[in-house]
Amino acid sequence: MNFKVTPWEVEGKIDYDKLIEFFGVNKIDETLLEQFKRFVKGDLHVLLRRGYFFAHRDLDRVLNDLKNGKKFFLYTGRGPSGPMHIGHLVPFIFTKWLQEKFDANVYIELTDDEKFLEPKRKLSLEETRKWAHENILDIIAVGFDPEKTFIFQDTEYIRHMYPLALKIAKKINFSQVKAVFGFKNETNVGLIFFPVLQMVPTFFEDKNCLIPAAIDQDPYWRLQRDIADSLGKSKSSQIHSKFLPPLTGLEGKMSASKPETAVYLTDDEKTVKEKIYKYAFSGGQPTVEEHRKLGGNPDIDVSFQWLRFLFEEDDKKIKKIEEDYRSGRLLTGELKDILIEKLNNFLINHRQRREKAKELVNIFKYEGRLAREMWNKIFE
Amino acid sequence: MNFKVTPWEVEGKIDYDKLIEFFGVNKIDETLLEQFKRFVKGDLHVLLRRGYFFAHRDLDRVLNDLKNGKKFFLYTGRGPSGPMHIGHLVPFIFTKWLQEKFDANVYIELTDDEKFLEPKRKLSLEETRKWAHENILDIIAVGFDPEKTFIFQDTEYIRHMYPLALKIAKKINFSQVKAVFGFKNETNVGLIFFPVLQMVPTFFEDKNCLIPAAIDQDPYWRLQRDIADSLGKSKSSQIHSKFLPPLTGLEGKMSASKPETAVYLTDDEKTVKEKIYKYAFSGGQPTVEEHRKLGGNPDIDVSFQWLRFLFEEDDKKIKKIEEDYRSGRLLTGELKDILIEKLNNFLINHRQRREKAKELVNIFKYEGRLAREMWNKIFE
Repeated sequence: MNFKVTPWEVEGKIDYDKLIEFFGVNKIDETLLEQFKRFVKGDLHVLLRRGYFFAHRDLDRVLNDLKNGKKFFLYTGRGPSGPMHIGHLVPFIFTKWLQEKFDANVYIELTDDEKFLEPKRKLSLEETRKWAHENILDIIAVGFDPEKTFIFQDTEYIRHMYPLALKIAKKINFSQVKAVFGFKNETNVGLIFFPVLQMVPTFFEDKNCLIPAAIDQDPYWRLQRDIADSLGKSKSSQIHSKFLPPLTGLEGKMSASKPETAVYLTDDEKTVKEKIYKYAFSGGQPTVEEHRKLGGNPDIDVSFQWLRFLFEEDDKKIKKIEEDYRSGRLLTGELKDILIEKLNNFLINHRQRREKAKELVNIFKYEGRLAREMWNKIFE
Repeated sequence: MNFKVTPWEVEGKIDYDKLIEFFGVNKIDETLLEQFKRFVKGDLHVLLRRGYFFAHRDLDRVLNDLKNGKKFFLYTGRGPSGPMHIGHLVPFIFTKWLQEKFDANVYIELTDDEKFLEPKRKLSLEETRKWAHENILDIIAVGFDPEKTFIFQDTEYIRHMYPLALKIAKKINFSQVKAVFGFKNETNVGLIFFPVLQMVPTFFEDKNCLIPAAIDQDPYWRLQRDIADSLGKSKSSQIHSKFLPPLTGLEGKMSASKPETAVYLTDDEKTVKEKIYKYAFSGGQPTVEEHRKLGGNPDIDVSFQWLRFLFEEDDKKIKKIEEDYRSGRLLTGELKDILIEKLNNFLINHRQRREKAKELVNIFKYEGRLAREMWNKIFE
């Protein structure tokens, strides 16, 4: 494969079909989508119906169990290594939708320990915790139910997870984390232990655990599924997303260290406009004349892909944009303007909600109904 | 070497001089004992003056710093894998004496996590925590100052240690724990991480940390001393004990899985008598006639060694016992009777104090002055 997808590195142009095969996950096909539709009154989220969430493990089991009255809970997370960009927000947007549709509890883990332990990050623990705080504001702004959502940081919630973490840790040896995560003899002992803490929340409830997350996290869930039985617990289920393509083209993922690849949630209107104009990889022709004549290619055009996955939910409108662009009626600049307007509207709203989120942090972390329950539990 | 000393295994007849060389520690020599004496008004503990605590790292530094007004704190611990025998109690007896003489805070870590993670133990986490509770009663019975002693279990205190643990963990890789502890690819990731938690308490105060413990724990402190500088913290100092010889002879150490090797703190008077009569390895001759003629060998006689190290503190009396035994005046049975009486007295008193300890558990763990301070701190 000429691309690489691990929890710590994403490189190259990802062939998602190959990845499905390589990871041994299942494609979310039409049959499964039809099944899903029945639970949401036909209202499939744009991220599902346009294939951004494209693969799964045992999603069919979760839906079947649901038919038989067995509910599920949702679990996702964030490695707080810096400011969040638009791509980071996508799994949360989808998770929030699932919470609404299925009335499910949501657990959101901030791995402030992991991001400190990763040597290449060069972040102090103080910094990862500061980012955890910042990121939590963005996550809350997505609109989760404050009584049914528990947001926690590993360094704060560890005492409640540690006994269960020990039981998981005893089932996993160095050979296994070496094989699954590519750890080496030079890997620090904190990072060697860390995967255990990402597995603990999959056992937070005695229901099915459904994890909406980007597919690079799959190695954790493979390991979880290997050991769940031996602990007398359930294998977790996953619903895997693609990566929102970086502005610069369809290779790799947006990177905090390359600001030209990403739009940050803090980017103001002017910055967004400049970034899209300057960096958004275009599927258009070099000149207006050629474009009018030959048409553009929306499949490789990042502005179009962003609109398709996230910012133009209306199926008729997106179809028209696609046709107009392919035919040459819509110019690259015009396409970019559509995205810029949608994106800036989204960000303006997001930042308003983020301001309000500051007053909600304590609810999500400590005082909401679910949070209170969680601080009274110790997982064994 | 035809013996083995690791935190998890002690086998063969230990040559303590060779061990000093092999571990690269220092012998506690007469000069150091003289220096020590000045701090305790000439009153050296029997365990020091008879060489039970026989080796150290940087004890001279601790004493020098003390001269210059820099105090130290004491740290020791217990792996709660079962009931405690008389040998387990020795480091606590000595630590309690140090606390009294130097007015030092004492931190006692119960590694309920480690003993669960050790695969050969086959203990559930519930069991190691039950043993932690039982062992804490024996430890309190030794007589520590309830306002200056903090007793804690890893599974309970983890949240307060975890941030600092992460900083330590980031400095230590798999190669290092492999070299120092003999970990293998098959070692579980919990045990790989665990040494970090045994190192955290060495940084509990901004003073010198002095650790009285059996010498098998030295690998932890070697690693601590390797990484302390890079964290901008102090290397810990150790005062290492030998092992109280098992009843069955001078090889190995007392073992919970071989009841004939040990006297448990719960053994009643009759059991103690039977065990000493039946199992205590004797340096005497096969018949009374030969013994009277040739004399016994106290150097290999376990009853004599137990008296010497622990139960006969009077130097004149122990000298007389030794001479009488060596000359043949004192028979093996008579020597054993002396030990039995002393040992049973000790155990009767211990069990009375252990009963009273039940009311003190909350003080040592949560409510005493030092304990309260510790629950208000998070180590970063």
